[in-house]
Amino acid sequence: MPEAYVTLATNDGYAIGALVLGHSLHSVGTTRDLCILITPQVSQAIKSMLEGVFNKVEVVNVMDSNDTAHLSLLNRPELGVTFTKLHAWKLTCYSKCVFLDADILAVKNSDDLFQQPELSACCDIGWPDCFNSGMFVFVPNMDTYGALLKHAQTVGSFDGGDQGVLNTFFPNWNRVSFVYNMVASATYTYLPAYKQYGSNAKLVHFLGTMKPWQHRYDSQAGQVETSPGYQHLSPFLNSWWAIYVRLVQPGVPSIDVSKASED
Amino acid sequence: MPEAYVTLATNDGYAIGALVLGHSLHSVGTTRDLCILITPQVSQAIKSMLEGVFNKVEVVNVMDSNDTAHLSLLNRPELGVTFTKLHAWKLTCYSKCVFLDADILAVKNSDDLFQQPELSACCDIGWPDCFNSGMFVFVPNMDTYGALLKHAQTVGSFDGGDQGVLNTFFPNWNRVSFVYNMVASATYTYLPAYKQYGSNAKLVHFLGTMKPWQHRYDSQAGQVETSPGYQHLSPFLNSWWAIYVRLVQPGVPSIDVSKASED
Ligand SMILES: O=c1ccn([C@@H]2O[C@H](COP(=O)(O)OP(=O)(O)O)[C@@H](O)[C@H]2O)c(=O)[nH]1
Ligand SMILES: O=c1ccn([C@@H]2O[C@H](COP(=O)(O)OP(=O)(O)O)[C@@H](O)[C@H]2O)c(=O)[nH]1
Ligand SMILES: [Mn+2]
Ligand SMILES: [Mn+2]
Repeated sequence: MPEAYVTLATNDGYAIGALVLGHSLHSVGTTRDLCILITPQVSQAIKSMLEGVFNKVEVVNVMDSNDTAHLSLLNRPELGVTFTKLHAWKLTCYSKCVFLDADILAVKNSDDLFQQPELSACCDIGWPDCFNSGMFVFVPNMDTYGALLKHAQTVGSFDGGDQGVLNTFFPNWNRVSFVYNMVASATYTYLPAYKQYGSNAKLVHFLGTMKPWQHRYDSQAGQVETSPGYQHLSPFLNSWWAIYVRLVQPGVPSIDVSKASED
Repeated sequence: MPEAYVTLATNDGYAIGALVLGHSLHSVGTTRDLCILITPQVSQAIKSMLEGVFNKVEVVNVMDSNDTAHLSLLNRPELGVTFTKLHAWKLTCYSKCVFLDADILAVKNSDDLFQQPELSACCDIGWPDCFNSGMFVFVPNMDTYGALLKHAQTVGSFDGGDQGVLNTFFPNWNRVSFVYNMVASATYTYLPAYKQYGSNAKLVHFLGTMKPWQHRYDSQAGQVETSPGYQHLSPFLNSWWAIYVRLVQPGVPSIDVSKASED
Protein backbone atom coordinates (compact mmCIF):
# COMPACT_ATOMS: atom_id res chain seq x y z
CA MET A 1 0.00 0.00 0.00
CA PRO A 2 1.24 3.51 -0.74
CA GLU A 3 2.14 6.10 1.87
CA ALA A 4 1.02 9.73 1.71
CA TYR A 5 1.30 13.23 3.01
CA VAL A 6 -2.17 14.39 4.03
CA THR A 7 -3.44 17.92 4.53
CA LEU A 8 -6.77 19.64 5.08
CA ALA A 9 -8.58 22.74 3.83
CA THR A 10 -12.09 23.86 4.72
CA ASN A 11 -11.99 27.07 2.66
CA ASP A 12 -10.19 28.64 -0.29
CA GLY A 13 -7.62 30.43 1.87
CA TYR A 14 -6.30 27.27 3.44
CA ALA A 15 -6.66 25.51 0.06
CA ILE A 16 -4.25 28.08 -1.40
CA GLY A 17 -1.88 27.20 1.45
CA ALA A 18 -2.32 23.53 0.62
CA LEU A 19 -1.48 24.19 -3.06
CA VAL A 20 1.79 25.85 -2.06
CA LEU A 21 2.49 23.02 0.40
CA GLY A 22 1.86 20.44 -2.34
CA HIS A 23 4.18 22.19 -4.80
CA SER A 24 6.85 22.52 -2.10
CA LEU A 25 6.64 18.79 -1.34
CA HIS A 26 7.13 18.04 -5.04
CA SER A 27 10.03 20.48 -5.25
CA VAL A 28 11.91 18.68 -2.46
CA GLY A 29 11.44 15.43 -4.36
CA THR A 30 9.04 13.44 -2.21
CA THR A 31 8.38 9.91 -3.44
CA ARG A 32 5.10 9.67 -1.51
CA ASP A 33 1.53 10.42 -2.60
CA LEU A 34 -0.16 13.69 -1.74
CA CYS A 35 -3.71 13.65 -0.40
CA ILE A 36 -6.00 16.45 0.72
CA LEU A 37 -9.25 16.45 2.66
CA ILE A 38 -11.54 19.31 1.70
CA THR A 39 -15.05 20.34 2.67
CA PRO A 40 -17.70 21.48 0.18
CA GLN A 41 -16.93 25.13 1.03
CA VAL A 42 -13.84 24.94 -1.20
CA SER A 43 -14.74 26.43 -4.59
CA GLN A 44 -14.84 24.33 -7.76
CA ALA A 45 -12.03 26.36 -9.39
CA ILE A 46 -9.67 25.76 -6.47
CA LYS A 47 -10.72 22.11 -6.25
CA SER A 48 -9.69 21.64 -9.87
CA MET A 49 -6.29 23.14 -9.10
CA LEU A 50 -5.92 20.81 -6.10
CA GLU A 51 -6.61 17.86 -8.39
CA GLY A 52 -3.62 18.91 -10.48
CA VAL A 53 -1.25 18.83 -7.51
CA PHE A 54 -2.64 16.12 -5.20
CA ASN A 55 -3.03 12.43 -6.06
CA LYS A 56 -6.25 12.31 -4.10
CA VAL A 57 -8.76 15.05 -3.25
CA GLU A 58 -11.26 13.68 -0.76
CA VAL A 59 -14.38 15.66 0.02
CA VAL A 60 -15.48 15.16 3.61
CA ASN A 61 -18.58 16.50 5.27
CA VAL A 62 -18.31 17.77 8.80
CA MET A 63 -22.04 17.43 9.38
CA ASP A 64 -22.60 13.82 8.42
CA SER A 65 -25.98 12.94 9.90
CA ASN A 66 -25.46 9.22 9.35
CA ASP A 67 -22.85 9.19 12.08
CA THR A 68 -24.16 9.38 15.62
CA ALA A 69 -20.71 10.41 16.81
CA HIS A 70 -20.86 13.38 14.44
CA LEU A 71 -24.25 14.38 15.75
CA SER A 72 -23.04 14.43 19.32
CA LEU A 73 -20.39 16.87 18.23
CA LEU A 74 -22.95 19.23 16.69
CA ASN A 75 -23.27 21.16 19.93
CA ARG A 76 -19.49 21.65 19.96
CA PRO A 77 -19.03 24.04 17.03
CA GLU A 78 -15.43 24.81 17.96
CA LEU A 79 -14.55 21.16 17.33
CA GLY A 80 -15.69 21.32 13.70
CA VAL A 81 -12.25 21.55 12.18
CA THR A 82 -10.92 19.13 14.80
CA PHE A 83 -13.39 16.59 13.64
CA THR A 84 -12.40 17.15 10.04
CA LYS A 85 -8.73 16.40 10.82
CA LEU A 86 -9.78 13.13 12.46
CA HIS A 87 -11.18 12.01 9.08
CA ALA A 88 -7.54 11.38 8.12
CA TRP A 89 -7.58 8.08 10.04
CA LYS A 90 -10.18 6.80 7.53
CA LEU A 91 -7.65 6.94 4.65
CA THR A 92 -7.03 3.19 4.87
CA CYS A 93 -5.88 3.07 1.26
CA TYR A 94 -2.54 4.26 2.72
CA SER A 95 -0.41 2.15 5.06
CA LYS A 96 1.11 5.18 6.76
CA CYS A 97 0.66 8.95 6.49
CA VAL A 98 2.21 12.21 7.59
CA PHE A 99 -0.39 14.86 8.34
CA LEU A 100 0.70 18.42 7.57
CA ASP A 101 -1.23 21.60 8.31
CA ALA A 102 -1.98 23.69 5.21
CA ASP A 103 0.15 26.50 6.65
CA ILE A 104 3.34 24.43 6.36
CA LEU A 105 6.07 24.80 3.72
CA ALA A 106 8.43 21.94 2.86
CA VAL A 107 11.98 23.25 2.51
CA LYS A 108 13.80 19.88 2.66
CA ASN A 109 12.77 16.30 1.90
CA SER A 110 11.16 14.77 4.99
CA ASP A 111 10.30 11.31 3.65
CA ASP A 112 12.31 9.68 6.47
CA LEU A 113 9.35 10.54 8.70
CA PHE A 114 7.59 7.50 7.20
CA GLN A 115 10.05 5.30 9.14
CA GLN A 116 8.62 6.61 12.42
CA PRO A 117 5.75 4.93 14.29
CA GLU A 118 2.30 6.32 15.09
CA LEU A 119 2.12 8.79 16.77
CA SER A 120 5.32 10.72 16.06
CA ALA A 121 5.42 14.49 16.28
CA CYS A 122 7.41 17.49 17.53
CA CYS A 123 7.21 19.32 20.84
CA ASP A 124 4.81 22.19 21.07
CA ILE A 125 6.78 25.26 22.08
CA GLY A 126 4.03 26.45 24.43
CA TRP A 127 3.96 23.30 26.59
CA PRO A 128 6.60 20.88 25.30
CA ASP A 129 5.16 17.77 27.00
CA CYS A 130 2.48 18.17 24.32
CA PHE A 131 3.10 17.66 20.64
CA ASN A 132 2.14 20.26 18.08
CA SER A 133 -0.56 18.77 15.88
CA GLY A 134 0.53 20.64 12.75
CA MET A 135 2.66 17.61 11.76
CA PHE A 136 2.20 14.04 12.88
CA VAL A 137 2.94 10.55 11.61
CA PHE A 138 -0.08 8.26 11.81
CA VAL A 139 -1.50 4.96 10.57
CA PRO A 140 -5.00 5.15 9.03
CA ASN A 141 -7.23 2.63 10.76
CA MET A 142 -11.00 2.51 11.22
CA ASP A 143 -10.72 1.24 14.79
CA THR A 144 -8.45 4.13 15.73
CA TYR A 145 -10.83 6.49 13.98
CA GLY A 146 -13.76 5.19 16.02
CA ALA A 147 -11.79 5.37 19.26
CA LEU A 148 -10.70 8.92 18.48
CA LEU A 149 -14.29 10.02 17.83
CA LYS A 150 -15.41 8.45 21.07
CA HIS A 151 -12.52 10.12 22.90
CA ALA A 152 -13.40 13.50 21.39
CA GLN A 153 -16.97 13.00 22.57
CA THR A 154 -16.23 11.79 26.09
CA VAL A 155 -12.95 13.43 27.10
CA GLY A 156 -13.21 16.40 24.75
CA SER A 157 -10.42 18.78 23.90
CA PHE A 158 -8.64 20.75 26.60
CA ASP A 159 -7.78 23.51 24.12
CA GLY A 160 -10.90 23.36 21.98
CA GLY A 161 -8.89 22.18 18.97
CA ASP A 162 -7.55 18.94 17.55
CA GLN A 163 -4.27 19.33 19.46
CA GLY A 164 -6.04 18.90 22.79
CA VAL A 165 -7.90 15.76 21.63
CA LEU A 166 -4.85 14.15 20.03
CA ASN A 167 -2.53 14.79 22.97
CA THR A 168 -4.80 13.14 25.52
CA PHE A 169 -5.45 10.23 23.10
CA PHE A 170 -1.72 9.69 22.38
CA PRO A 171 -0.02 10.55 25.71
CA ASN A 172 3.02 8.39 24.90
CA TRP A 173 3.83 10.01 21.58
CA ASN A 174 7.26 9.63 19.99
CA ARG A 175 9.31 12.83 19.77
CA VAL A 176 11.06 13.69 16.50
CA SER A 177 13.33 16.66 15.93
CA PHE A 178 11.86 20.14 15.83
CA VAL A 179 13.20 20.50 12.26
CA TYR A 180 10.14 18.49 11.12
CA ASN A 181 7.76 21.15 12.41
CA MET A 182 9.79 24.26 12.89
CA VAL A 183 7.35 26.77 14.22
CA ALA A 184 8.37 29.94 12.49
CA SER A 185 8.13 32.10 15.64
CA ALA A 186 10.99 30.09 17.18
CA THR A 187 13.28 32.07 14.91
CA TYR A 188 12.91 35.11 17.13
CA THR A 189 12.15 33.63 20.56
CA TYR A 190 15.55 31.88 20.71
CA LEU A 191 17.53 33.49 17.91
CA PRO A 192 20.92 31.94 18.80
CA ALA A 193 19.45 28.42 18.55
CA TYR A 194 17.84 29.37 15.25
CA LYS A 195 21.19 30.61 13.93
CA GLN A 196 22.81 27.38 15.13
CA TYR A 197 20.19 24.86 13.96
CA GLY A 198 17.76 26.73 11.69
CA SER A 199 19.48 25.67 8.47
CA ASN A 200 18.44 22.09 9.29
CA ALA A 201 14.74 22.98 9.09
CA LYS A 202 12.77 20.64 6.83
CA LEU A 203 9.16 21.69 7.40
CA VAL A 204 8.39 25.29 8.36
CA HIS A 205 5.07 25.91 10.10
CA PHE A 206 3.51 29.38 9.93
CA LEU A 207 1.54 28.80 13.12
CA GLY A 208 -0.58 31.61 14.50
CA THR A 209 -3.04 34.14 13.27
CA MET A 210 -1.15 35.63 10.33
CA LYS A 211 -0.78 33.13 7.51
CA PRO A 212 1.63 33.51 4.57
CA TRP A 213 -1.19 34.37 2.17
CA GLN A 214 -2.24 37.21 4.48
CA HIS A 215 1.06 39.05 4.21
CA ARG A 216 1.47 41.75 1.57
CA TYR A 217 3.66 40.90 -1.36
CA ASP A 218 5.50 43.53 -3.40
CA SER A 219 5.42 41.90 -6.82
CA GLN A 220 7.80 44.45 -8.35
CA ALA A 221 10.47 43.91 -5.70
CA GLY A 222 9.59 40.21 -5.57
CA GLN A 223 9.54 40.39 -1.77
CA VAL A 224 7.12 40.07 1.10
CA GLU A 225 6.49 43.26 3.06
CA THR A 226 7.03 41.77 6.51
CA SER A 227 5.19 43.34 9.41
CA PRO A 228 7.06 44.20 12.63
CA GLY A 229 7.80 40.99 14.52
CA TYR A 230 7.85 38.94 11.32
CA GLN A 231 11.19 40.11 9.85
CA HIS A 232 13.02 36.93 10.78
CA LEU A 233 10.46 34.98 8.76
CA SER A 234 11.06 36.89 5.56
CA PRO A 235 13.30 34.20 3.97
CA PHE A 236 10.57 31.60 4.54
CA LEU A 237 7.76 33.95 3.55
CA ASN A 238 9.67 34.80 0.37
CA SER A 239 10.06 31.08 -0.38
CA TRP A 240 6.34 30.59 0.14
CA TRP A 241 5.44 33.49 -2.13
CA ALA A 242 7.96 32.45 -4.80
CA ILE A 243 6.05 29.18 -5.19
CA TYR A 244 2.69 30.92 -4.94
CA VAL A 245 3.46 33.53 -7.60
CA ARG A 246 4.99 31.07 -10.05
CA LEU A 247 2.84 27.96 -9.66
CA VAL A 248 -0.44 28.85 -7.97
CA GLN A 249 -1.48 32.44 -8.64
CA PRO A 250 -1.68 32.07 -12.47
CA GLY A 251 -4.50 29.53 -12.06
CA VAL A 252 -6.38 31.24 -9.26
CA PRO A 253 -9.57 33.07 -10.25
CA SER A 254 -9.55 36.73 -9.27
CA ILE A 255 -10.35 36.22 -5.61
CA ASP A 256 -8.56 38.24 -2.98
CA VAL A 257 -6.45 35.51 -1.47
CA SER A 258 -5.78 37.50 1.70
CA LYS A 259 -9.52 37.47 2.39
CA ALA A 260 -10.17 33.93 1.21
CA SER A 261 -9.77 32.32 4.62
CA GLU A 262 -12.58 34.44 6.04
CA ASP A 263 -15.16 32.50 4.04
CA MET B 1 28.19 8.95 48.58
CA PRO B 2 25.37 11.45 49.08
CA GLU B 3 23.35 13.10 46.34
CA ALA B 4 22.58 16.82 46.23
CA TYR B 5 20.66 19.65 44.69
CA VAL B 6 23.16 22.26 43.52
CA THR B 7 22.57 25.92 42.74
CA LEU B 8 24.67 28.98 41.99
CA ALA B 9 24.76 32.66 42.99
CA THR B 10 27.32 35.25 41.94
CA ASN B 11 25.69 38.16 43.77
CA ASP B 12 23.33 38.88 46.65
CA GLY B 13 20.24 39.08 44.43
CA TYR B 14 20.60 35.54 43.11
CA ALA B 15 21.71 34.42 46.60
CA ILE B 16 18.35 35.63 47.92
CA GLY B 17 16.73 33.52 45.19
CA ALA B 18 18.87 30.57 46.30
CA LEU B 19 17.76 31.00 49.92
CA VAL B 20 14.11 30.83 48.88
CA LEU B 21 14.89 27.83 46.65
CA GLY B 22 16.64 26.08 49.55
CA HIS B 23 13.73 26.68 51.92
CA SER B 24 11.26 25.50 49.27
CA LEU B 25 13.24 22.27 48.77
CA HIS B 26 13.12 21.64 52.50
CA SER B 27 9.41 22.41 52.62
CA VAL B 28 8.66 19.74 49.99
CA GLY B 29 10.62 17.25 52.10
CA THR B 30 13.70 16.51 50.04
CA THR B 31 15.96 13.81 51.50
CA ARG B 32 18.98 15.04 49.53
CA ASP B 33 21.74 17.49 50.49
CA LEU B 34 21.68 21.11 49.35
CA CYS B 35 24.83 22.68 47.93
CA ILE B 36 25.49 26.15 46.57
CA LEU B 37 28.35 27.55 44.53
CA ILE B 38 28.99 31.23 45.25
CA THR B 39 31.56 33.73 44.07
CA PRO B 40 33.39 36.17 46.36
CA GLN B 41 30.93 38.96 45.35
CA VAL B 42 28.30 37.48 47.68
CA SER B 43 28.34 39.47 50.94
CA GLN B 44 29.41 37.91 54.24
CA ALA B 45 25.96 38.43 55.80
CA ILE B 46 24.20 36.57 53.00
CA LYS B 47 26.87 33.88 53.00
CA SER B 48 26.14 33.21 56.67
CA MET B 49 22.45 32.85 55.88
CA LEU B 50 23.27 30.41 53.06
CA GLU B 51 25.26 28.33 55.54
CA GLY B 52 22.09 27.99 57.62
CA VAL B 53 20.10 26.54 54.72
CA PHE B 54 22.64 24.66 52.57
CA ASN B 55 24.75 21.68 53.66
CA LYS B 56 27.67 22.99 51.64
CA VAL B 57 28.57 26.53 50.52
CA GLU B 58 31.45 26.36 48.04
CA VAL B 59 33.25 29.53 46.95
CA VAL B 60 34.35 29.42 43.30
CA ASN B 61 35.76 31.93 40.83
CA VAL B 62 33.64 33.55 38.18
CA MET B 63 34.10 31.99 34.76
CA ASP B 64 33.04 34.32 32.03
CA SER B 65 32.20 33.45 28.46
CA ASN B 66 33.40 36.88 27.28
CA ASP B 67 31.06 36.29 24.39
CA THR B 68 29.28 39.58 24.04
CA ALA B 69 28.32 38.94 20.42
CA HIS B 70 26.15 35.91 21.14
CA LEU B 71 24.76 37.28 24.37
CA SER B 72 23.71 40.45 22.64
CA LEU B 73 21.56 38.29 20.35
CA LEU B 74 19.66 37.40 23.50
CA ASN B 75 19.94 40.93 24.95
CA ARG B 76 21.25 39.31 28.15
CA PRO B 77 24.89 40.45 28.69
CA GLU B 78 24.74 39.27 32.34
CA LEU B 79 24.50 35.63 31.28
CA GLY B 80 28.25 35.30 30.64
CA VAL B 81 28.68 34.44 34.30
CA THR B 82 26.47 31.39 33.87
CA PHE B 83 29.67 29.66 32.67
CA THR B 84 30.42 29.49 36.39
CA LYS B 85 27.85 26.66 36.43
CA LEU B 86 30.47 24.35 34.92
CA HIS B 87 32.22 24.27 38.34
CA ALA B 88 29.38 21.99 39.47
CA TRP B 89 31.05 18.98 37.80
CA LYS B 90 33.88 19.31 40.34
CA LEU B 91 31.57 18.37 43.24
CA THR B 92 32.83 14.79 43.31
CA CYS B 93 31.84 14.36 46.95
CA TYR B 94 28.35 13.70 45.47
CA SER B 95 27.53 10.66 43.37
CA LYS B 96 24.75 12.44 41.50
CA CYS B 97 23.34 15.97 41.50
CA VAL B 98 20.41 17.98 40.22
CA PHE B 99 21.42 21.50 39.23
CA LEU B 100 18.75 24.15 39.79
CA ASP B 101 18.93 27.81 38.80
CA ALA B 102 18.55 30.20 41.72
CA ASP B 103 15.36 31.56 40.13
CA ILE B 104 13.55 28.24 40.62
CA LEU B 105 10.94 27.44 43.28
CA ALA B 106 10.22 23.87 44.40
CA VAL B 107 6.47 23.35 44.73
CA LYS B 108 6.49 19.51 44.85
CA ASN B 109 9.09 16.93 45.82
CA SER B 110 11.29 16.13 42.82
CA ASP B 111 13.68 13.61 44.38
CA ASP B 112 12.74 11.03 41.74
CA LEU B 113 14.95 13.04 39.37
CA PHE B 114 17.94 11.33 41.02
CA GLN B 115 16.87 8.09 39.31
CA GLN B 116 17.55 9.71 35.92
CA PRO B 117 20.90 9.46 34.11
CA GLU B 118 23.28 12.27 33.16
CA LEU B 119 22.27 14.39 31.30
CA SER B 120 18.53 14.61 31.93
CA ALA B 121 16.63 17.85 31.46
CA CYS B 122 13.48 19.44 30.04
CA CYS B 123 12.83 20.92 26.61
CA ASP B 124 13.60 24.57 26.14
CA ILE B 125 10.42 26.29 24.97
CA GLY B 126 12.33 28.48 22.51
CA TRP B 127 13.89 25.61 20.55
CA PRO B 128 12.70 22.31 22.05
CA ASP B 129 15.47 20.15 20.52
CA CYS B 130 17.60 21.93 23.13
CA PHE B 131 17.22 21.44 26.85
CA ASN B 132 16.79 24.34 29.21
CA SER B 133 19.83 24.46 31.46
CA GLY B 134 17.92 25.80 34.47
CA MET B 135 17.48 22.22 35.70
CA PHE B 136 19.62 19.23 34.82
CA VAL B 137 20.63 15.91 36.34
CA PHE B 138 24.39 15.35 36.21
CA VAL B 139 27.22 13.25 37.65
CA PRO B 140 30.16 15.22 39.08
CA ASN B 141 33.37 13.98 37.50
CA MET B 142 36.74 15.67 36.97
CA ASP B 143 37.16 14.16 33.49
CA THR B 144 33.78 15.50 32.41
CA TYR B 145 34.68 18.87 33.93
CA GLY B 146 37.92 18.99 31.93
CA ALA B 147 36.18 17.96 28.74
CA LEU B 148 33.48 20.58 29.30
CA LEU B 149 36.04 23.35 29.79
CA LYS B 150 37.86 22.29 26.66
CA HIS B 151 34.57 22.17 24.76
CA ALA B 152 33.68 25.66 26.03
CA GLN B 153 37.03 26.93 24.78
CA THR B 154 37.11 25.20 21.41
CA VAL B 155 33.47 24.94 20.34
CA GLY B 156 32.23 27.82 22.49
CA SER B 157 28.63 28.60 23.25
CA PHE B 158 26.17 29.28 20.46
CA ASP B 159 24.11 31.48 22.78
CA GLY B 160 26.93 32.91 24.88
CA GLY B 161 25.63 31.18 28.02
CA ASP B 162 25.96 27.79 29.65
CA GLN B 163 22.92 26.47 27.77
CA GLY B 164 24.73 26.73 24.45
CA VAL B 165 27.81 24.91 25.77
CA LEU B 166 25.89 22.16 27.54
CA ASN B 167 23.59 21.43 24.61
CA THR B 168 26.41 20.89 22.13
CA PHE B 169 28.32 18.82 24.72
CA PHE B 170 25.29 16.62 25.56
CA PRO B 171 23.47 16.34 22.21
CA ASN B 172 21.81 13.05 23.23
CA TRP B 173 20.26 14.30 26.45
CA ASN B 174 17.40 12.46 28.13
CA ARG B 175 14.08 14.30 28.18
CA VAL B 176 12.06 14.44 31.39
CA SER B 177 8.64 16.01 31.80
CA PHE B 178 8.26 19.77 31.64
CA VAL B 179 6.86 19.68 35.20
CA TYR B 180 10.49 19.46 36.42
CA ASN B 181 11.34 22.83 34.89
CA MET B 182 8.07 24.55 34.25
CA VAL B 183 9.04 27.81 32.68
CA ALA B 184 6.63 30.26 34.22
CA SER B 185 5.89 32.05 30.92
CA ALA B 186 4.34 28.82 29.59
CA THR B 187 1.36 29.63 31.75
CA TYR B 188 0.30 32.35 29.34
CA THR B 189 1.71 31.17 26.02
CA TYR B 190 -0.46 28.02 26.06
CA LEU B 191 -3.00 28.66 28.78
CA PRO B 192 -5.25 25.63 28.04
CA ALA B 193 -2.29 23.26 28.50
CA TYR B 194 -1.37 25.06 31.70
CA LYS B 195 -4.94 24.65 32.96
CA GLN B 196 -4.81 20.95 32.03
CA TYR B 197 -1.34 20.07 33.32
CA GLY B 198 -0.11 23.01 35.42
CA SER B 199 -1.18 21.49 38.74
CA ASN B 200 1.45 18.77 38.14
CA ALA B 201 4.27 21.34 38.22
CA LYS B 202 7.08 20.38 40.61
CA LEU B 203 9.76 22.98 39.90
CA VAL B 204 8.74 26.44 38.66
CA HIS B 205 11.38 28.44 36.81
CA PHE B 206 11.11 32.25 36.72
CA LEU B 207 13.14 32.43 33.52
CA GLY B 208 13.70 35.80 31.90
CA THR B 209 14.66 39.29 32.89
CA MET B 210 12.24 39.91 35.76
CA LYS B 211 13.05 37.74 38.77
CA PRO B 212 10.69 37.15 41.73
CA TRP B 213 12.73 39.41 44.00
CA GLN B 214 12.35 42.24 41.47
CA HIS B 215 8.55 42.30 41.67
CA ARG B 216 6.88 44.67 44.12
CA TYR B 217 5.31 43.09 47.14
CA ASP B 218 2.45 44.66 49.04
CA SER B 219 3.24 43.52 52.56
CA GLN B 220 -0.09 44.74 53.94
CA ALA B 221 -2.13 42.81 51.39
CA GLY B 222 0.39 39.98 51.51
CA GLN B 223 0.42 39.88 47.71
CA VAL B 224 2.72 40.54 44.82
CA GLU B 225 1.78 43.48 42.61
CA THR B 226 2.08 41.68 39.30
CA SER B 227 2.99 43.72 36.26
CA PRO B 228 0.99 43.32 33.03
CA GLY B 229 1.91 40.04 31.40
CA TYR B 230 2.77 38.45 34.73
CA GLN B 231 -0.74 37.98 36.16
CA HIS B 232 -0.83 34.24 35.54
CA LEU B 233 2.32 33.93 37.63
CA SER B 234 0.84 35.54 40.69
CA PRO B 235 0.10 32.25 42.52
CA PHE B 236 3.75 31.21 42.07
CA LEU B 237 5.10 34.68 42.84
CA ASN B 238 2.96 34.75 45.99
CA SER B 239 4.38 31.35 47.02
CA TRP B 240 7.89 32.65 46.43
CA TRP B 241 7.25 35.79 48.49
CA ALA B 242 5.50 33.87 51.28
CA ILE B 243 8.75 31.95 51.84
CA TYR B 244 10.87 35.05 51.40
CA VAL B 245 8.91 37.16 53.89
CA ARG B 246 8.72 34.46 56.54
CA LEU B 247 12.09 32.73 56.32
CA VAL B 248 14.57 34.95 54.49
CA GLN B 249 13.76 38.64 54.89
CA PRO B 250 14.07 38.69 58.73
CA GLY B 251 17.74 37.78 58.44
CA VAL B 252 18.62 39.98 55.48
CA PRO B 253 20.52 43.18 56.28
CA SER B 254 18.73 46.30 55.06
CA ILE B 255 19.75 46.01 51.43
CA ASP B 256 17.27 46.72 48.70
CA VAL B 257 16.72 43.22 47.42
CA SER B 258 15.22 44.44 44.15
CA LYS B 259 18.56 46.13 43.39
CA ALA B 260 20.79 43.41 44.77
CA SER B 261 21.24 41.58 41.48
CA GLU B 262 22.71 44.67 39.83
CA ASP B 263 25.94 44.33 41.82
O1 LIG C 1 -10.68 27.45 9.07
C1 LIG C 1 -9.82 26.55 9.03
C2 LIG C 1 -8.90 26.36 10.07
C3 LIG C 1 -7.96 25.35 9.96
N1 LIG C 1 -7.95 24.52 8.88
C4 LIG C 1 -6.99 23.42 8.78
O2 LIG C 1 -6.53 23.11 10.10
C5 LIG C 1 -5.13 23.41 10.20
C6 LIG C 1 -4.84 23.96 11.59
O3 LIG C 1 -5.24 25.30 11.69
P1 LIG C 1 -4.14 26.48 11.75
O4 LIG C 1 -2.98 26.11 10.93
O5 LIG C 1 -4.85 27.78 11.42
O6 LIG C 1 -3.78 26.47 13.30
P2 LIG C 1 -2.36 26.91 13.93
O7 LIG C 1 -1.32 26.00 13.32
O8 LIG C 1 -2.12 28.35 13.59
O9 LIG C 1 -2.57 26.64 15.39
C7 LIG C 1 -4.85 24.37 9.05
O10 LIG C 1 -3.49 24.42 8.69
C8 LIG C 1 -5.74 23.79 7.97
O11 LIG C 1 -5.17 22.61 7.43
C9 LIG C 1 -8.85 24.71 7.85
O12 LIG C 1 -8.82 23.98 6.86
N2 LIG C 1 -9.78 25.71 7.97
O1 LIG D 1 24.44 37.40 37.42
C1 LIG D 1 24.12 36.20 37.52
C2 LIG D 1 23.41 35.52 36.53
C3 LIG D 1 23.06 34.21 36.74
N1 LIG D 1 23.45 33.55 37.88
C4 LIG D 1 23.12 32.12 38.06
O2 LIG D 1 22.88 31.52 36.78
C5 LIG D 1 21.52 31.11 36.69
C6 LIG D 1 21.02 31.36 35.28
O3 LIG D 1 20.74 32.72 35.06
P1 LIG D 1 19.22 33.23 34.93
O4 LIG D 1 18.36 32.40 35.84
O5 LIG D 1 19.20 34.72 35.16
O6 LIG D 1 18.93 32.93 33.43
P2 LIG D 1 17.49 32.57 32.76
O7 LIG D 1 16.98 31.33 33.48
O8 LIG D 1 16.60 33.77 33.00
O9 LIG D 1 17.81 32.32 31.33
C7 LIG D 1 20.81 31.91 37.78
O10 LIG D 1 19.56 31.34 38.16
C8 LIG D 1 21.83 31.90 38.87
O11 LIG D 1 21.88 30.64 39.50
C9 LIG D 1 24.14 34.22 38.86
O12 LIG D 1 24.45 33.64 39.88
N2 LIG D 1 24.48 35.53 38.66
MN1 LIG E 1 -0.95 25.46 11.41
MN1 LIG F 1 16.90 30.83 35.45
